[in-house]
Amino acid sequence: MITRMSSLFLRTLREDPADAEVPSHKLLVRAGYVRRVAPGGYSWLPLGLRVLRNIEAVVREEMDAIGGQEIQFPALLPREPYEATGRWSEYGDALFRLKDRKGADYLLGPTHEELFALTVKGEYSSYKDYPVILYQVQTKYRDEARPRAGILRGREFVMKDSYSFDLDDEGLARSYQLHRDAYIRIFDRLGLEYVIVKATSGAMGGSASEEFLAVAETGEDTYVRSTGSGYAANVEAVVTPPPAEQPVEGRPEAQVHYTPGTPTIETLVDFLNKADLGRTFTAADTLKNVLVKTRQPGQKDWELLAVGVPGDREVDLKRLEASLEPAEVALLEESDFAANPFLVKGYIGPGALQANGVRYLVDPRIVRGTAWVTGADKADHHVVDLLCGRDFTPDGTIEAAEVREGDASPDGHGTLVAARGIEIGHIFQLGRKYTDAFEVDALGPDSKPVRITMGSYGIGVSRLVAVLAEQFHDELGLVWPRGIGPADVHVVVAGKDETVAEGGERIAAQLSERGVRVLLDDRKATPGVKFADAELIGVPTIVVVGRGLAKGVVEVKDRATGERSEIAVDDVVEHVVSLNSR
Amino acid sequence: MITRMSSLFLRTLREDPADAEVPSHKLLVRAGYVRRVAPGGYSWLPLGLRVLRNIEAVVREEMDAIGGQEIQFPALLPREPYEATGRWSEYGDALFRLKDRKGADYLLGPTHEELFALTVKGEYSSYKDYPVILYQVQTKYRDEARPRAGILRGREFVMKDSYSFDLDDEGLARSYQLHRDAYIRIFDRLGLEYVIVKATSGAMGGSASEEFLAVAETGEDTYVRSTGSGYAANVEAVVTPPPAEQPVEGRPEAQVHYTPGTPTIETLVDFLNKADLGRTFTAADTLKNVLVKTRQPGQKDWELLAVGVPGDREVDLKRLEASLEPAEVALLEESDFAANPFLVKGYIGPGALQANGVRYLVDPRIVRGTAWVTGADKADHHVVDLLCGRDFTPDGTIEAAEVREGDASPDGHGTLVAARGIEIGHIFQLGRKYTDAFEVDALGPDSKPVRITMGSYGIGVSRLVAVLAEQFHDELGLVWPRGIGPADVHVVVAGKDETVAEGGERIAAQLSERGVRVLLDDRKATPGVKFADAELIGVPTIVVVGRGLAKGVVEVKDRATGERSEIAVDDVVEHVVSLNSR
Repeated sequence: MITRMSSLFLRTLREDPADAEVPSHKLLVRAGYVRRVAPGGYSWLPLGLRVLRNIEAVVREEMDAIGGQEIQFPALLPREPYEATGRWSEYGDALFRLKDRKGADYLLGPTHEELFALTVKGEYSSYKDYPVILYQVQTKYRDEARPRAGILRGREFVMKDSYSFDLDDEGLARSYQLHRDAYIRIFDRLGLEYVIVKATSGAMGGSASEEFLAVAETGEDTYVRSTGSGYAANVEAVVTPPPAEQPVEGRPEAQVHYTPGTPTIETLVDFLNKADLGRTFTAADTLKNVLVKTRQPGQKDWELLAVGVPGDREVDLKRLEASLEPAEVALLEESDFAANPFLVKGYIGPGALQANGVRYLVDPRIVRGTAWVTGADKADHHVVDLLCGRDFTPDGTIEAAEVREGDASPDGHGTLVAARGIEIGHIFQLGRKYTDAFEVDALGPDSKPVRITMGSYGIGVSRLVAVLAEQFHDELGLVWPRGIGPADVHVVVAGKDETVAEGGERIAAQLSERGVRVLLDDRKATPGVKFADAELIGVPTIVVVGRGLAKGVVEVKDRATGERSEIAVDDVVEHVVSLNSR
Repeated sequence: MITRMSSLFLRTLREDPADAEVPSHKLLVRAGYVRRVAPGGYSWLPLGLRVLRNIEAVVREEMDAIGGQEIQFPALLPREPYEATGRWSEYGDALFRLKDRKGADYLLGPTHEELFALTVKGEYSSYKDYPVILYQVQTKYRDEARPRAGILRGREFVMKDSYSFDLDDEGLARSYQLHRDAYIRIFDRLGLEYVIVKATSGAMGGSASEEFLAVAETGEDTYVRSTGSGYAANVEAVVTPPPAEQPVEGRPEAQVHYTPGTPTIETLVDFLNKADLGRTFTAADTLKNVLVKTRQPGQKDWELLAVGVPGDREVDLKRLEASLEPAEVALLEESDFAANPFLVKGYIGPGALQANGVRYLVDPRIVRGTAWVTGADKADHHVVDLLCGRDFTPDGTIEAAEVREGDASPDGHGTLVAARGIEIGHIFQLGRKYTDAFEVDALGPDSKPVRITMGSYGIGVSRLVAVLAEQFHDELGLVWPRGIGPADVHVVVAGKDETVAEGGERIAAQLSERGVRVLLDDRKATPGVKFADAELIGVPTIVVVGRGLAKGVVEVKDRATGERSEIAVDDVVEHVVSLNSR
């Protein structure tokens, strides 16, 4: 296939678009791959669409290879199934909702768990039908609060979403592993640098879950990895290793102290260390109780929740929210304090919480036998040596404290450091949330119904175009991995001489016959303009047909390394074909 | 490629779906190609998606062959461009409208003229850039009042829409012809029976326009064709051939007659024929003036319009609306008559209309020198021998009278007969409606701006799946044309014998190696069930591997003709390959 620049619908830009911050956004616009149509809405111009299609092809091949069967749902979906699972409201403002001419409610699908579950229920009935993996490559919609970075976070995007249906947990684990392996092959084939991190499952429900994050400084997702092992996780998914429990017998009694002028942890620690208590305190010895209120989906009333964390750590709201999902979380207002006078601001302790029936969840570090300085439920008073498991008994633990660089890795090897990435894939063991909602059962061998268990797996296909651009570019432009870019070779006709033009045409034709996808710059433009465009567009191999032709040579340039070599005209086709089949 | 029925996500149905009326809908659901998700919303199951992709591939090849360049726009589009062209409101209830989280207006694109025009304006500036043809294969949305017949008329569907941009009318005519030829190749390759009819352009604006209609008794579109020529047209697009003008000199004077009890054309004609006027009248001698009101898009006020047609014909509202588009048309209410007392119901004549400045358009048959019996603007009174061009002068002509079988063909050859079809393609010479709205100009060779002229061309890609099913089926099921169906050959393992199963596997593997797409029925089911499914699914060639295998033969059945032949096992692969490459 030969694509001629003289007629290609492409105009490159010399300037970065005003709204672009990250390299992929700047370069994909400048090189004419995409154009902005609306906030978070982009059109794919010819070169961009080709890259998208190439990525889709890789994704399809690997999905087919694990037995995935492609189907396709509408994007415009009725409200009812999403109402049944609660997602109609849980999705909040991120869901595009609309009405049809009759006033019926519709949405633009963000993901399709409901529809896949219903479809499998509609077609399959026997245990012999299972397992099955279904997928689609489909346009998805999310009304992002802050669409950003071009096609990295759009409001309309292409996603591969697949769903596995199994008879039991072991089956689900197998389907999950199949997807995990397929995703590794997909991202490896694309040449991406990425990590697999433990993840929370968000509004999707379910248990085991991992994210594939492309390593990128510009990424929106923060994750942590261990310095001493392969451990990596989303900050929301980091599980705090609890310390050993300690005996409660024979430990000092809890004592209430008058601690005037200690509104902060810092002033409290200072005060205690100046008081003559025979030991030194740090912020880590204090127990900070943070009050929030939560509301379960579909409920009207809020419930108080106290979260206890060591005083040297802040409550990380994203971690707190992830732990409590799908419940909503809100901070208390003055009226809440007024309604609960036992909450003494700045001096809240476990005593009043438990006496008044407030749900009390604590950081996993607060185990039986640990002693704490905390509020005494009375202004200007704190209690020292309040012993967990003796003086108070929390209702459970919660991952809500901030994760810090230097924290011990949850797997016991090394410490954590932070890094940034872009989510490119997500795999979930959903379990039975959706099959319960729609009663998706198979008739088992014993004629009893078996509730099906589901997995849900996504790849941000259109986002991958930007992620590749993010990882593969230099100061001159894009640098596509072989096989993924819009062409395999960029033949530049450099010179006005007719024999040069003919030479370029001939080489392009010969390459095309060999199955090489050729971008031929046959425009009436200066070599300088053509070279700059070739660097910007980023096809892996550039063949310059110019003055050397008279001596029987052309120049072959590797876009990634910048390496140039003179190749005899008669050898150039073989040379490029061999580069391409590596 | 081998697709195994044992794991294929497919369950065929023995019963027609309750809501299905047309054969394609029944069969595509029964054979497991599509499933209903919402009114006018269908999911594509594996077999259906394959047919859709095969059709898309044919469409893309032919679009690429005429130099079309594929790009892709979002389906979720901002209001502003559609506001600029008036289509935001003109589209009425058929447009899905929604708001984002910030309250900004969006729509789901029904077609993309605005976006393509804006994109070309954004990229191109010189006359040297033109012409250009851009296209997309994209999901479109229309909130149909009556979604029907499965995927024949859905609310979410796949369309190929392309747009040509030319410097002048001759260029537009060339781009139009390129598309016309490409469409002929596409529909011919799909093996469809279709007609090309002259069409009106609907809400799209523009002038020359033709529709491709697949011949189908179940079609929604009525068209007429000539018995004596190749002429075919949408009823809305039929142009009435005017009779010859006649002299007005020396003709009898117009005379007002008292005609009591003549509220209808029939009673009037009766009355006149009983009166002693020396000649016989028919309904065709009378002139019926029908009053409506019209409103231009974006306007608030309605304007009266009188439409004069021969009394033997009704006003066809669809033809009237098509003639007046994009203006709205409404019937008069009592209050309108009250506000215009010169309108004497049942007796409206040209006199009062013209005296009161009412716009008056007449059927093309009402030419200078024709004499008419019509209302005298006075109850119970008619005027006879009112001469067009002498006694009244219409403001112009309008195509609003009904078209009838037996009418003379507009091309002068033969008479018209009615037929039914399904619109599968539509080509328009749009002209400058959209380029005017967005000032899309090219800088000409003389440095003066040239306003670009546009064409717009659409193919209902997903609808074609149903249209093919409509034209290619029999009482047993679907009968796909070669190359378009979900597989090339259906290998049925008929028998429980292990050697039979192995024989089927071997033949399937050999066929697959030769590039034949194989559907292999390796299920544990009776031969009867398998045969019925094979007929229903409609793959063109069925190979039955059964008891004959012991004697070294298999049965090859042609799905379309029902012809069966015994073929030696060793020859069957060659045989099927040769069938397939025909």
